[in-house]
Amino acid sequence: MDLEAHLRDFTRRDWEQPVDGGPVRVAMVGLGWWTRERAVPAVIASDYCETTTLVSRSKEKATEATDLADTVEHGLSVEEFEAGHAADAYDAVYVCTPNATHLEHVETAAEQGKAVLCEKPMEATVERARELVDAASDVPAMVAYRMQTEPAVRRAKELIEAGLIGDPVHVHGHMSQRFPQMFTDYDHWRYHPELAGRGTTITDIGVYPLNTIRFLIESDPVSVQGVTISNHEAFSEVPDEHTSFTMRFPEDVVATCTASQNAYHSSHLKVTGTEGEVTMEPAFFDRQPRGLTVSVGETTVDHDFERVNQMREEFDYFGNCLLSERDPYPDAAHGLVDVEVMDAIYDAAAAGEAVSL
Amino acid sequence: MDLEAHLRDFTRRDWEQPVDGGPVRVAMVGLGWWTRERAVPAVIASDYCETTTLVSRSKEKATEATDLADTVEHGLSVEEFEAGHAADAYDAVYVCTPNATHLEHVETAAEQGKAVLCEKPMEATVERARELVDAASDVPAMVAYRMQTEPAVRRAKELIEAGLIGDPVHVHGHMSQRFPQMFTDYDHWRYHPELAGRGTTITDIGVYPLNTIRFLIESDPVSVQGVTISNHEAFSEVPDEHTSFTMRFPEDVVATCTASQNAYHSSHLKVTGTEGEVTMEPAFFDRQPRGLTVSVGETTVDHDFERVNQMREEFDYFGNCLLSERDPYPDAAHGLVDVEVMDAIYDAAAAGEAVSL
Repeated sequence: MDLEAHLRDFTRRDWEQPVDGGPVRVAMVGLGWWTRERAVPAVIASDYCETTTLVSRSKEKATEATDLADTVEHGLSVEEFEAGHAADAYDAVYVCTPNATHLEHVETAAEQGKAVLCEKPMEATVERARELVDAASDVPAMVAYRMQTEPAVRRAKELIEAGLIGDPVHVHGHMSQRFPQMFTDYDHWRYHPELAGRGTTITDIGVYPLNTIRFLIESDPVSVQGVTISNHEAFSEVPDEHTSFTMRFPEDVVATCTASQNAYHSSHLKVTGTEGEVTMEPAFFDRQPRGLTVSVGETTVDHDFERVNQMREEFDYFGNCLLSERDPYPDAAHGLVDVEVMDAIYDAAAAGEAVSL
Repeated sequence: MDLEAHLRDFTRRDWEQPVDGGPVRVAMVGLGWWTRERAVPAVIASDYCETTTLVSRSKEKATEATDLADTVEHGLSVEEFEAGHAADAYDAVYVCTPNATHLEHVETAAEQGKAVLCEKPMEATVERARELVDAASDVPAMVAYRMQTEPAVRRAKELIEAGLIGDPVHVHGHMSQRFPQMFTDYDHWRYHPELAGRGTTITDIGVYPLNTIRFLIESDPVSVQGVTISNHEAFSEVPDEHTSFTMRFPEDVVATCTASQNAYHSSHLKVTGTEGEVTMEPAFFDRQPRGLTVSVGETTVDHDFERVNQMREEFDYFGNCLLSERDPYPDAAHGLVDVEVMDAIYDAAAAGEAVSL
């Protein structure tokens, strides 16, 4: 493999296919900061999608938000969305609500025959995630793992698949941020298990290394170990202000990850193989620079590249798939595995024992 | 703290004291490649030590090796060393033999009233390591953790102690090399538990992140988890061709480490705190460049520095301590903790359970 040639045209959209028609008209459900500040602007910039409908628990919030993009025609309450108001105005539904409420919105979208793009983690419990898989079985349904359409991750995956680093042996992953400084109101749903799931850090950010590692090595864990620690008052209801977890894969790859909702803003991912190493650092935050370093033998290449808008890539991939009549990936069955693995990590941490999957 | 000022004069020997007399005359026991290619040249370059005596199981090998340095006067068999031949020619004994044989040589040195510098890990079992602590209790005895006198590690420790990165939260450590390509004769003692201990990878290289993390945060683990995997034929008698282990510290720092004797030559160490991050990469190999990166707030400093000969720093520190009548550190009690922690990691990996210390 010619590494330099491979890294040229770094942000190429290997997934892009010719399409007829479009754009895909999107309804966004949940108008928190991520939808308003990340998803809506990404779709404004996108080639294959446009936002026509915004849905919120609060009709007032939905109506006000229609100013966010020129293409938005409808601001609906959840009740109106469920009753099918303006259902002709959208082809797909983006679900970006608290984890434990994804299922009902996916059910509504699927009943209306709409394609689904559901934020990660797919749901708050394994049971509800399984119900979501069933609910979405007749429509194209994708889980919004934006790292899977991040060019640095795709180029790294191609390098690994081509055997450049030999057989993967170890993976290190990390993601941390200072959530209590970002969300000073501790009523925020991510601090509370009713809406967040069994914890907050594994479900919100630990899932980045977890899912990205699964994607990079195309394998799912067979056993996990974990440590969870909560000390700060904001995390009194969840076990995982800080967490560490180790995943063993059937090919005997071992991945060891840490995540914290209350540590310095930082992320990295490193895959060490028998013949070389691929490092992404920073790795996961959408508006940070990202770095890709590849080492093979005596050679190390620090690759600088143009940063993409990850959310735009994700929506464009989703839209391109729908318009070219392909099922988008990662699908709900893929997302379910993450929920099952996270559940096993919480079990493992609570018991101090390895848990098999 | 002024970070730039702190990193200036990077290789300063903060431990160096005025001395009278010297140099410390060293007998080296065990004439494998590390002694011949690393230790003897380091002492030739050192300010405070000289090698006068070489000891091997083979009298012939010891005699031949006297050519390695002009200062060497005696080439002894182990039997001659134990009988006190040429004991007047050395003040200190460096023990660099297979792990399971350290005890007997330390006992000999201590009986002769000589200072001891014993390679890591201190011994092959907890029981023998405890005996070694007792045996060396009346002489200055240091365990040869060369990272503790590596300037990059000392500067990082000072930064952490000064609170620059806030409270440490997570640590990642890794060390790997392709041992079967370095030692193609699988009779080599490191592949065999009788001489290596319960395994080869944790004891030989996993101990680098383990001990360096203890040193950096000045704390000892209270519980560990582990994974060990052996597939390659060379590792048929030991469980840990590859390993991953997680250590929890009383301050709720969690360190997660990987090591492999059969993966790409690589090492890194990263401490993430509440306010910043310190990264060493490469971290542990003695003849590789080393990198130190410090991130605090929006600022990241990649510090380039003059590489030192780690073995020379270690011997100079040891010699300077002896000549200034200070006990060198890390002492045998400190080294014992590593042997206990490694033993707990092997137990944890075998049982699939967290083990408390």
